[in-house]
Amino acid sequence: MLITNRLSLLHRFLTIFFIFISISSCALSGRPPRFLGNFAKPATHRKTLPSHETRYFDQRLDHFSFRGDAKFKQRYLISTEHWAGPAQMAPIFLYCGNEGDIVWFAENTGFIWEIAPAFGAMVVFPEHRYYGESMPFGSRDEAYKNASTLAYLTSEQALADFAVLVTSLKRNLSAETSPVVLFGGSYGGMLAAWMRLKYPHIAIGALASSAPILQFEDIVPSETFYDIVSQDFKRESSRCFDTIKKSWDALEVEGQQPNGLKQLTKAFRLCGELKSTGDLNNWLESAYSSLAMVNYPYPSSFLMPLPGHPIKEVCKRIDSYPEGTSVLERIFGGVSVYYNFTGEVDCFQLDDDPHGMSGWNWQACTEMVMPMSSSRNSSMFRTYDYDYTAFKLWCLEEFNVEPRPNWITTEYGGHDYMTTWREFGSNIIFSNGLLDPWSGGSVLKNVSDTLVALVTEEGMAF
Amino acid sequence: MLITNRLSLLHRFLTIFFIFISISSCALSGRPPRFLGNFAKPATHRKTLPSHETRYFDQRLDHFSFRGDAKFKQRYLISTEHWAGPAQMAPIFLYCGNEGDIVWFAENTGFIWEIAPAFGAMVVFPEHRYYGESMPFGSRDEAYKNASTLAYLTSEQALADFAVLVTSLKRNLSAETSPVVLFGGSYGGMLAAWMRLKYPHIAIGALASSAPILQFEDIVPSETFYDIVSQDFKRESSRCFDTIKKSWDALEVEGQQPNGLKQLTKAFRLCGELKSTGDLNNWLESAYSSLAMVNYPYPSSFLMPLPGHPIKEVCKRIDSYPEGTSVLERIFGGVSVYYNFTGEVDCFQLDDDPHGMSGWNWQACTEMVMPMSSSRNSSMFRTYDYDYTAFKLWCLEEFNVEPRPNWITTEYGGHDYMTTWREFGSNIIFSNGLLDPWSGGSVLKNVSDTLVALVTEEGMAF
Repeated sequence: MLITNRLSLLHRFLTIFFIFISISSCALSGRPPRFLGNFAKPATHRKTLPSHETRYFDQRLDHFSFRGDAKFKQRYLISTEHWAGPAQMAPIFLYCGNEGDIVWFAENTGFIWEIAPAFGAMVVFPEHRYYGESMPFGSRDEAYKNASTLAYLTSEQALADFAVLVTSLKRNLSAETSPVVLFGGSYGGMLAAWMRLKYPHIAIGALASSAPILQFEDIVPSETFYDIVSQDFKRESSRCFDTIKKSWDALEVEGQQPNGLKQLTKAFRLCGELKSTGDLNNWLESAYSSLAMVNYPYPSSFLMPLPGHPIKEVCKRIDSYPEGTSVLERIFGGVSVYYNFTGEVDCFQLDDDPHGMSGWNWQACTEMVMPMSSSRNSSMFRTYDYDYTAFKLWCLEEFNVEPRPNWITTEYGGHDYMTTWREFGSNIIFSNGLLDPWSGGSVLKNVSDTLVALVTEEGMAF
Repeated sequence: MLITNRLSLLHRFLTIFFIFISISSCALSGRPPRFLGNFAKPATHRKTLPSHETRYFDQRLDHFSFRGDAKFKQRYLISTEHWAGPAQMAPIFLYCGNEGDIVWFAENTGFIWEIAPAFGAMVVFPEHRYYGESMPFGSRDEAYKNASTLAYLTSEQALADFAVLVTSLKRNLSAETSPVVLFGGSYGGMLAAWMRLKYPHIAIGALASSAPILQFEDIVPSETFYDIVSQDFKRESSRCFDTIKKSWDALEVEGQQPNGLKQLTKAFRLCGELKSTGDLNNWLESAYSSLAMVNYPYPSSFLMPLPGHPIKEVCKRIDSYPEGTSVLERIFGGVSVYYNFTGEVDCFQLDDDPHGMSGWNWQACTEMVMPMSSSRNSSMFRTYDYDYTAFKLWCLEEFNVEPRPNWITTEYGGHDYMTTWREFGSNIIFSNGLLDPWSGGSVLKNVSDTLVALVTEEGMAF
C-alpha cells in the first residue's frame, strides 16, 4: 500500500492534533457529561504553513435530500507545490477536517506536509462544515441559531462534502486517476476511517489517528476513557492518584461549610466567586482529562504551554508538599501546572465555553453519542454511571434535539468489527498511543492484513 | 457464499419483476426522455402470497439531518414461517423494495419465497418510501405535493430505511447474528448492490438482477438501451426492424397532411383525437421498449397479457401483411399485439400516466439521471442525442427541481468499477439476460471471485 512505505516516519513526524474534548463528569450535579470543542488558537504560538492557497467551494447544504438548493462556502487549503501531476498519477493527500478552524489543524499537522514532497503529493485541507469559516447560512450566528439551522451538521454530510469536493477537484485537474489518501485525527480520524469504509471508490486508504470509532453503544466499556486518564496518573504516582481521588469529597465538605464557597474561591484563586462546587469539579476534571491527552514527553504548547511529561510534573507537585498540607492545597498546586505553567495567570476563569453553543456539543447530542462513566475503583474521578436519559434531557434543553444513540453503528458499523470489517474493509491504519484516553475506543488490534493497528504502548495521541 | 448453492434455481424460478420504465424518445418534439413508473396492478392477475404478516415501521423521514423528527409508516411484509430462528443463525432474506406497491413485487418475486424454506430463512419485503402505502406526510397527495415534500425520495434515504428497519428487527428478535441477504431487480437490484457496497456490515451479500448501475454519466454508451431493444427486433426479422425504422417518417408525413392527425386517430383507433404526432410516437416507442423488457419465451401477463416470444409475434404480424400494405397499417398491427392481445380493446388511450406526478420521474429528475440516446444506424427509433440541458429544463418545469447528474457516481462509484469495486466489493451477484435492454447498463463481467456476473445470452430480465 502506498502509505505504508513511509510508516516509519509516522511516530517521528506525526504531529497532528486531536480533539480537545474536555468531559466534565457531573454525577453529583445530575448533569450529563459535557463535550467541549475548545479551539481557541493561542495567537502567540502560530506556526507558519508551507506554501498553499486558500479557496472556497460551493458546497450543497444537504446532500441527501432535494429540499431546496442551499449552498455554503466550504473553505479549503490546497498545496500543489510538490504535486507531480496527473500524468504521474501522483497522489492527493486529503485531510479530513474536524471540529475546528482548518488553519489551526493544518498548522498542527506536520506529518502530511512533511511526507508530501517524497510522494509528489498534492495536499488538501478541507474545513468541516459549521466550523472555522465554513458556515452555512452566511455566519456562525445564523448557522448556530437553532436546531433547524444546525440540522445539517452531521458526519454523513461532512463526508459527502469531502467526496464532492475531491471529485470536483480531480475532474478540474484531469486527475481522475490520482489516488486519494485520507488523513485525520480524533473525530477527524473517525471521519477518515468512515470515509474509506463508505467511499472506497473515492479514497484508496486512510490513516486514522487516535480515532475512537468504537466508543459507541456498548462496543467498548463506558468507563474506558476515565480509566485510562486515571491510569496515566497512577503510573506516575499512586499517591498522586489517591490524593486526587480523595479530593472530591474534601471539596464537597469544604463547600458545605459556612463561607465554604468563599474559601474555595480564595484557595483556588478564582476570578469570580464560586456558585457551586460543581463548577470547580468540572474545571479540575477538565484539566486532568486534557493533561492525559497532551502528556507529551517534550514541552508543548498545543492547548496550554506545558513542560514535557506534564502529568509527571503535576504529580510531583502534588506529592512534594510537606506532610500536613491539605488535599485541596495539593490539588490546586497540581492543576496550576496545567492552567498556569508560565506563572502569568493572576486569577482563574472557570467558564471555558465563551462561545455558547458549541458545534461539538451539537454533534454529541445528535449522532456522536459516546457513553461515558467513571468506575468506583479504577477511576480517580467521581463515580458515576452513564445516564442516557439525563443526557437526552440535557440535549433537548440545550438544543431542542433528541439524540440518535444507535445511528452511528447502523450507518458505519462497529459491532463485531473484527469479523465484519475484516471481510470488506481495507487500507486503513489505526494509529494509537495507549496513554491517550481515546485509545480505549479505538481499534488496537490488526483486523486484517490491510486493516492494521499501530499501537505505541507508551505513546500519546498519535 | 450462502446463496450460490441454489443458483441453479435462478433461471428456472426467478420470476421477479423489473422496472417498467417506458422511455419516450422525443428528439423531434424537443422534450427529454421520460421515465414512467407504471405499476397499476392488473386485478385479474393477482397471485396469492405465502403466509406472511403486514406490518408498519415508524421510519425517520430524514436520516441525514436533524431538521425535525418527522416520521412515516413504512409498510413491510414479513414471513417467519420457515425461519429456523436466531439460535441457528438462520438468514434473513431482505427484498429491496423499489418504485411500486410492495405487495405487487412480493407477488411477482417467486424466487425468494421458493428458496426461503431450504435456507430456513425469514423473508422481509419492505416497501420503498413514497410508493404503495409508505407515504410520508400521511397521504400520496401530500407526499407528492411539491419539491419540498418529495425532497426525501432518494436512494440514500431508502437504503437507510432498510438498514434501520432490519437492524431494529434483528435487535427485537435477538437475531443479531443472523446474516442478511439482499435481493432486488432493476432499480431494486441497484439498491441491493448499493446497499451491499454501502452497508456491508448489515448485509453479507446481494443478488442484483437486471440492475443498470452503470447507466450513469458516460460509463456505458448512452445508446445502449435503444440499441438492445432494436437488436431484439432485428434478430427476429430485419424486415420488421426496417419497417419500424421507416415508420417515424411515414407518421410525420401523414401528420403534416390536411386532416392528417384525424386520419392517424382513425388508423390507430385512438379514443381521443390526436393533437400531435409526438404523443403517438411516445405510445409506439413505449410499446417497443416494454416488449423488449417482457420478451419471455412463454405467455405472461406481467405488464400486459402477452403470448410467448411477443417480439416474434409482433414482427410476424408486421411482416405478414400482403405486399402493398402501408407502413402505418403494419405498425398498428404490430403494436396491437402488445396493447390488445386479448382483442378486448375498443379504442386506445395514449395517456399512460394517469397519476400525474410519478415517483420515478422525480427520481429520474434528481439522482437517477441516466443518459439515453438513439443512434442513427443501430437504432430503429428516431435518432436523437442525449440533451441534458433540455432534460434539466423539463425537470425544472415538471418538479421545480434541478437534477444532480454526477451525484450517483460520487455516492456509490461506478467509474472504473472493474478496478475500484474489485478491490473492496464482495458478495454481489449481478444477474442479467442479454435480451433485456437494461443489461447494457449492468455488470456483465465478473469483477472478482466474489463480485460475479451471471449472464444468460438469450435470457430476459431475470
